[in-house]
Amino acid sequence: MTNTNPTAALILIGNELLSGRTQDTNLAHLATRLGSRGIRLVEARVIADDPPAIIQAVNELRSRHDHVFTTGGIGPTHDDITADCIAEAFGVAIGIDAEAQRRLEVFWRERDIESNPDRLRMARIPAGASLIDNDVSAAPGFKLGNVHVMAGVPRIMRSMLEHILPSLPSGPVTHAVSVVVTSMGEGDLAAPLRAVQERFPGVDLGSYPGHIDGVSRVELVARSQDEAELADVRGALLALVEAVGGTTLDT
Amino acid sequence: MTNTNPTAALILIGNELLSGRTQDTNLAHLATRLGSRGIRLVEARVIADDPPAIIQAVNELRSRHDHVFTTGGIGPTHDDITADCIAEAFGVAIGIDAEAQRRLEVFWRERDIESNPDRLRMARIPAGASLIDNDVSAAPGFKLGNVHVMAGVPRIMRSMLEHILPSLPSGPVTHAVSVVVTSMGEGDLAAPLRAVQERFPGVDLGSYPGHIDGVSRVELVARSQDEAELADVRGALLALVEAVGGTTLDT
Repeated sequence: MTNTNPTAALILIGNELLSGRTQDTNLAHLATRLGSRGIRLVEARVIADDPPAIIQAVNELRSRHDHVFTTGGIGPTHDDITADCIAEAFGVAIGIDAEAQRRLEVFWRERDIESNPDRLRMARIPAGASLIDNDVSAAPGFKLGNVHVMAGVPRIMRSMLEHILPSLPSGPVTHAVSVVVTSMGEGDLAAPLRAVQERFPGVDLGSYPGHIDGVSRVELVARSQDEAELADVRGALLALVEAVGGTTLDT
Repeated sequence: MTNTNPTAALILIGNELLSGRTQDTNLAHLATRLGSRGIRLVEARVIADDPPAIIQAVNELRSRHDHVFTTGGIGPTHDDITADCIAEAFGVAIGIDAEAQRRLEVFWRERDIESNPDRLRMARIPAGASLIDNDVSAAPGFKLGNVHVMAGVPRIMRSMLEHILPSLPSGPVTHAVSVVVTSMGEGDLAAPLRAVQERFPGVDLGSYPGHIDGVSRVELVARSQDEAELADVRGALLALVEAVGGTTLDT
């Protein structure tokens, strides 16, 4: 399955993700939105609020992928350390950015929010970075090299991502089709499924067992950039299920 | 914040997690259950069904942490490649395990499920591994060295994890207390919060902004192994909010 599309990695930063208190939803959202631009998310890491861990992950992944995204740790409190870590990873200085400060002060003035040194921490941007707009709370993210630094709050992350996406070189989009089988297990489908995979080697064909309302089901998912081929694969999957006497949820 | 507790890493394997089609819930569950045993989850990676990526992640993380857990890719279909990758990462052979086969055949016989070569793939276990029980569908996970290989289906993963946990050396449990502030932003809380952190340097103190039903709120979370100290921290957090004129959800 050669695929020459741009690749991306995501670094989710936050102790609360690793303690189990917070359920991440940013990964699936980012994956879906990148996919719509033909950018493949090929790796994600969840790491703690720990400078060496952040710096190492950023430097490893930015050399390996076309795009790196981070979420979390860019607020005003003492545990918000992402911007400093990014500056250190790139070996550049960090300080108050005049445009970031201006945006924050406009936002605060309109809401009778007082400026203070901690709030102003949100205007600290590594040297050479460009700002990423935040329609929700003004405090910008930033882009340095191929690293996009976003907020962890899903509503703000999503706003920032929509500002980033149009600027990214995109690739052909990978489409997906699926067939849900309710009447048999993966073990009954494995051999004919393997035959379909061999017949369509350029298609990424996966089998995902699970349960819906306590009833077990298997979802067969085919992914490819070639929509015509995918239609053929879907036909082959439906024929496969019929041939082994199975039932599908959709037709 | 020195913490000498055992550490763990999680590797979530699956193209569907990286395409955004499947929302992971295994990470938060594993984190919570490990936490109850005093084992710290310090890193998680989400990677594709790609042998070099799986082998590299397993070898990097098993040398770095006391425990490694993987989820996904141990079913009967052609895209289930985790067991082979683990064998390759450890440089050992892989083949049908007699006890795994026995368990599967008992389970199938009771359900009138036919054995076939694909189903038997679920009995392929790397040499030297010990089996992990599966109360849901019999197909075992396995443990090789410090790597625990589990299913990706949440119901099965949870069953396997409960069989693993009692065997892991545990450490002192980290407890958490939290105060939810509804009347002000992180920027108003940052300076006094920093003072609380300086007063209790052994406590991991985090601030998490978010929204509940469209109303913004900030959750202040303190984590420590010392429950008496945590009670003091919680008192200090409530006093902090009162001092700046804020409102908390709980008292």
